[in-house]
This record gives sequence, C-alpha cells and structure tokens, in this order.
Amino acid sequence: MKFSAERTTLLKALAHIQSVAEKRNTIPILANVLIQAQKDQISLKSTDMEIEVVEVIPANVMQDGATTAPASVLYEIVRKLPDNATVELDQSENEAPLHLRAGRFATRLNVLSVDDFPSMGAGDFPCSFTLPVAALRQLIDRTRFAISTEETRYYLNGIFFHAITGEGTPVLRSVATDGHRLARAETALPAGAEAMPGVIIPRKTVAELRKLIDEAPEEIGVALSETRIQFSVGPVTITSKLIDGTFPEYDRVIPRNNTRILRVGKKDFANAVARVAAISQERSKPVKMMLEPGLLTLSASSPEQGTTREELDDKYITFEEGNLEIGFQARYLNDITDQVEKDVEFAFSDSASPTIVRDADSPEVLYVLMPMRV
Amino acid sequence: MKFSAERTTLLKALAHIQSVAEKRNTIPILANVLIQAQKDQISLKSTDMEIEVVEVIPANVMQDGATTAPASVLYEIVRKLPDNATVELDQSENEAPLHLRAGRFATRLNVLSVDDFPSMGAGDFPCSFTLPVAALRQLIDRTRFAISTEETRYYLNGIFFHAITGEGTPVLRSVATDGHRLARAETALPAGAEAMPGVIIPRKTVAELRKLIDEAPEEIGVALSETRIQFSVGPVTITSKLIDGTFPEYDRVIPRNNTRILRVGKKDFANAVARVAAISQERSKPVKMMLEPGLLTLSASSPEQGTTREELDDKYITFEEGNLEIGFQARYLNDITDQVEKDVEFAFSDSASPTIVRDADSPEVLYVLMPMRV
Repeated sequence: MKFSAERTTLLKALAHIQSVAEKRNTIPILANVLIQAQKDQISLKSTDMEIEVVEVIPANVMQDGATTAPASVLYEIVRKLPDNATVELDQSENEAPLHLRAGRFATRLNVLSVDDFPSMGAGDFPCSFTLPVAALRQLIDRTRFAISTEETRYYLNGIFFHAITGEGTPVLRSVATDGHRLARAETALPAGAEAMPGVIIPRKTVAELRKLIDEAPEEIGVALSETRIQFSVGPVTITSKLIDGTFPEYDRVIPRNNTRILRVGKKDFANAVARVAAISQERSKPVKMMLEPGLLTLSASSPEQGTTREELDDKYITFEEGNLEIGFQARYLNDITDQVEKDVEFAFSDSASPTIVRDADSPEVLYVLMPMRV
Repeated sequence: MKFSAERTTLLKALAHIQSVAEKRNTIPILANVLIQAQKDQISLKSTDMEIEVVEVIPANVMQDGATTAPASVLYEIVRKLPDNATVELDQSENEAPLHLRAGRFATRLNVLSVDDFPSMGAGDFPCSFTLPVAALRQLIDRTRFAISTEETRYYLNGIFFHAITGEGTPVLRSVATDGHRLARAETALPAGAEAMPGVIIPRKTVAELRKLIDEAPEEIGVALSETRIQFSVGPVTITSKLIDGTFPEYDRVIPRNNTRILRVGKKDFANAVARVAAISQERSKPVKMMLEPGLLTLSASSPEQGTTREELDDKYITFEEGNLEIGFQARYLNDITDQVEKDVEFAFSDSASPTIVRDADSPEVLYVLMPMRV
C-alpha cells in the first residue's frame, strides 16, 4: 500500500475517526484505524463495536492495499505537521511497519493485521430516507439534554426516533426523557420513512453524529433496520447499534388540559433564574415561581446563605389565571430556556402536576417538566 | 452600613477577592468577604490564612459600617446582574441580614460577625521598593513552570526571590526548580531592595499575583519582612506568608563550562519535538537529540507504537562541536521553548551532564535541564 494525501484533508478525517476509536487499550485493534487505499481514494474506518465510522477522502494512490495503525497516535502526528504538508504513507507488505513521511519528518508505526479488524456486521437496511440537515439538528438539539444518564434505565439512554402517521400531517419525532423532564421535537415525515420502526439511538451515537452535522451538506442520508441505524454525512458514514429496549409510552405523561398560560421573555426569565438560584448550594438549585395576575416572583433560599427574590411584572410577563406557587430545579429550567429563541410559554395545571413549556415561536417542539416541592 | 456601587467595579473586585476565599466550608468565616464602608469607598477583604487580599473601590456610602458575607455567592449574584446595574448593599445593624438590591432583584444574605474575621497579622515590612510591572511579569513567567509540586520538598514549592549585590550590576533574581530543571530570571535591582532577605513565595501567591498583573498599572509596590511579602497592584493589596525553609544553593548546579553550542529556531524545534514525541505513550515522552556538525536528528520510540524521527539540517540549526546523543523529557523541552521568543540556544557538556538552555535574545534568563537516559 502506498499513497499520499493532503495533511488538512487527512487531519479532518482522522479527527472524526479517532473520536470513535477506543481510548482504553483493552482490545488493541479497536484503538486502530483501518486504512484502505484503492484507485484515487482512501477509506478510514474505526469502531468500538457499538459505532462504526467510515470516511472516504481523495488521495494519490500509488499502490492499492490496506493496513491498520493506532488512531490517536496517527491523529496527534498529523495534527502537528505543518498546514500545507503532503503526507505519504507506505507499507511494503502486510504486517510490515507503516512508514509515514512528511517533509523532514518520518515515522515507522507498528501495525496490526487487517484480518483482525472487526466488522460490526451492519446487515440490510430495509428503510431509508434523506433528511434536511437543519431538521436533524433540531431533532437532536432540542431533545438530547433530556437523555437519562441512569444506566439502569438503559432504554432512556438515548433519543427515541419514530414516525407518527395516524392523525394529521405525518411527522418524524424525537423524544428524550429522564423521568424528571421530557423533550419532544418533530419535523415533516420524509418520503421513505413511513414504515420506519421506532428506534432508540444511543447517547454516544447522538454525540458523534452531532459533531459531524456542523460541517454537513444540506441533506443527510438515514438508513435503518430494527437493530442498526446509519447516517451518511457527506464523506462520512456512521453506523450504530440501537438500544435494544422499549421506550416508554411518553404520550401519557404529556398533560392535555394545562390552561394557565405564562408568557415571559427568555432572557429576562433565564437571567432572573440564574441570579435567584445563585444563593443555593444544592445541586438541584430549587427555584420557586409565585404567580398572580400580572406578576411573577422568583425566589430561592438556602438555610446557610439567605434568600433571593426577583419580581417580573406585567412589563415582562403575561399571566391572568389566578394565583399559583410552583417549584422547579434551576438547571432544568435553564436546559429548556437554552433551547428557546425569544419567548418562553409555560402552561400550568397546579403546583403538583407536570407543566408544559414551549418556545412560543416553535410549535413543533414541546417540553414537559415535573415540579418539585420547594 | 449602607452603600451603592457600580456592578462592573464591584464584580471586578469580587473576582479577585473570591479567588482567595476558602471554597471548602471547613471554617465558614474564611468563605466570607469582609466588607468595610467608609467615606466614599469600600474595602473588600478575604483570606485563607496564608494569603490576604484587600481591594478598595469607590462607592456611594450612605452609612459607614462593616459586615461579612459569603464571597462566592455574592460574586455569582453580582456576576449575573445586568452590566449597567447599580448594586445597593444595606445592613441595618451588626449581624442583621445583609440586603442587596439591584433593580428588580433583591437578596437577604446571612452574615457572620465582623469580629470573627481573622487577621493574618502582617506586622512590619522593613524592606520596600517598586518594580516595573513588565519586570515582575518576566521574573514570574520565566520561572514558575519549574516550581516543584512535590509537597515533601516544601522549600521548592515556590519562587525564590533574592538580591545579588556582590559582583557586577546588582540584580533581583527569581529562581524555581523541581530537581529536574531549573529556571532563573533577573532584573536590575530596584532602589530599596539592596538589603532584602531571600524569600520563597508560595505557588498559590504567585498564581494570585500573576492574575492581577495583567490589569496592573506600570509600577508594583513590594514590601517584605523575613516572614511576609506584600504586593500593591493598583487598588489591590495582596499579602502572603512566605515559605519557611531554605532554598538550595542552586548556583552549584549551573554548569560553567558547557561549550558545545546548538542554536535552533524555537518554532521549528518545538514543532519537531511535538511530532516526534507523539509516538510515546509515556508521561515523560522521552525525546533523543542526535547531533553532528550541521545536523540535529530528533527521535523517539515506543515499544507498542513504533518510532519517529525528524531531521533539522544546517538550514535550521547551527552546531559545530563534534557528535553528541542526549535525551530529554518532551514536556520539559516544551516548557522552556514556550518561554523563548525566537531562537533557542543549548549549551551542552556531554550526554549525562546538565545542559544550559537560553533564549538567544534574553541573556537575563537561564534554564538548566537534566538529561534523561533514552
């Protein structure tokens, strides 16, 4: 195998690839990148046996072939080469050391056999469609913060993607919840997704996919089966196992009759919550919202430090439905307001019932927040 | 006590103050800031019993008085107030809650008695002088990276400041060492410092002082005794205990007869070291330098990963004195090249002896580096 490639192109691909390769040295081959050179391109692949990433880049291939090399070492070396360098990789025969040269620099890397590089065995993908990148970004960003980190509730450790076709316009929905809050986003169902199974995409896959999205082209290819999902993001293909579990029937926790509406500017509200919560040393930082017509009073207290309080009157808020006292964790409020562009809309029932929160300008996104006693 | 102050001014002072206040809650009063209002200014003070910071800022004082309040809570609250806010603090009587108001926001903070706020007892400072800020910055920056982190060698856990008056131009010197490398910087001895005792300034004091220097005026006041040092940095006064120990006679480890000189561009050298060292998984990342007239070859190896090698010929280096192989830790080389502007100059004896390193354009700074076997 012998080829040369532009350092910048190679670096970008290695950045994607080494992020999935195993950092721990338990199974050495999983720390390696599989490099395959053919015709005028090379493909780079890494896997942790849950996710597999493949990227194809142009190269000047002098001799076809394949090898594996330590992903993070290769990445570190290429990262430290000059911007405009051309990198030459050269391996005389299978399992001989891999030589890398760039200008005055040369390295000889130990390799592992190509035959030992594991395949995740993706199988067939009976369902496939394309999704505009902006739609996928929204489905991820508006929900991923609510993914549960409790490992025992493994079926909540990801985002649930599924198609809703029964009533009204068919949509593709993403949902995440940790039992304290729920986030739901949707977009028009793309052609080809009508028969897709509901799937739970693991948190790590979501994170890797999200990193790729910022450099992605307009359209992203999605293909899936009952057990695997694959995203085609420009030159990168990311394939992942799905979480083998049943996502809860989340619809039942979304209240239907919350009619007491509070509307408030996102910035005014978020800043007030931050100031008020600063008094509390607890991790949950409980904040109390006291509502009366035309007035929202936020407050918090700490037995050691004292109390805080901020009032937002009818210059800042709209609320007309009687009196209400309700408490939330400050960081849960923040997570949601971080997703809102301009105005936040709360729909309350009473102080003990789930509250609906929305971005007033984004009807396709909905949050549910459980109150806490304060 | 009652006063109002501009949020921006107050925030800047609290940032300095809360950095020294104890974060752990072992002695509650040490987590508090002492606030004293008098005439048209307030003073803020915090201490961890090793360092004490006082800052005086202008304020509109309506009633003189003093109180203490939790430093980090106060800082967090003021940080989250709007930029242009005016902050009013108000305490009706000693040990009553402290009220803070800013626009729609109000907090009532629990206080601790002013009488319980500890004094470090600075005592007299028989020696005092002023130092240009650029000189103090250089004395710190060029040496602090070499401060030892081994707690058992407590007398190396700081920078040794002392006056050299015997031979030639009198200088004020800073020295730090961890036994593997030594850094020494000097500046013209300021008037008033001739009789100063040699003092070891603890690492934390160095760090706090260094943070203040970037916003400092041209001149910094220094006052010291055998046990205390005090820096006056504009409106901030920082007083610190000194390390009670004897700094080693460092002069004995500085070789006098290293005559084999290598000169190399800092960037070319540092980048080559980074690339070569990327192969090694060891924390020390040993790098070998092989020298022959007109050629420097850097190399490193790892039993698992392979080998790396980079050549810098006489376009990049000057070296004329025979052949030499010598090894260093990559991060020690980096720490020094980070301090060099343009060209690095090595003065070698042999592969087992301490090597001198200099910034070719800064004769007032000197580094000594112990080689390692590679």
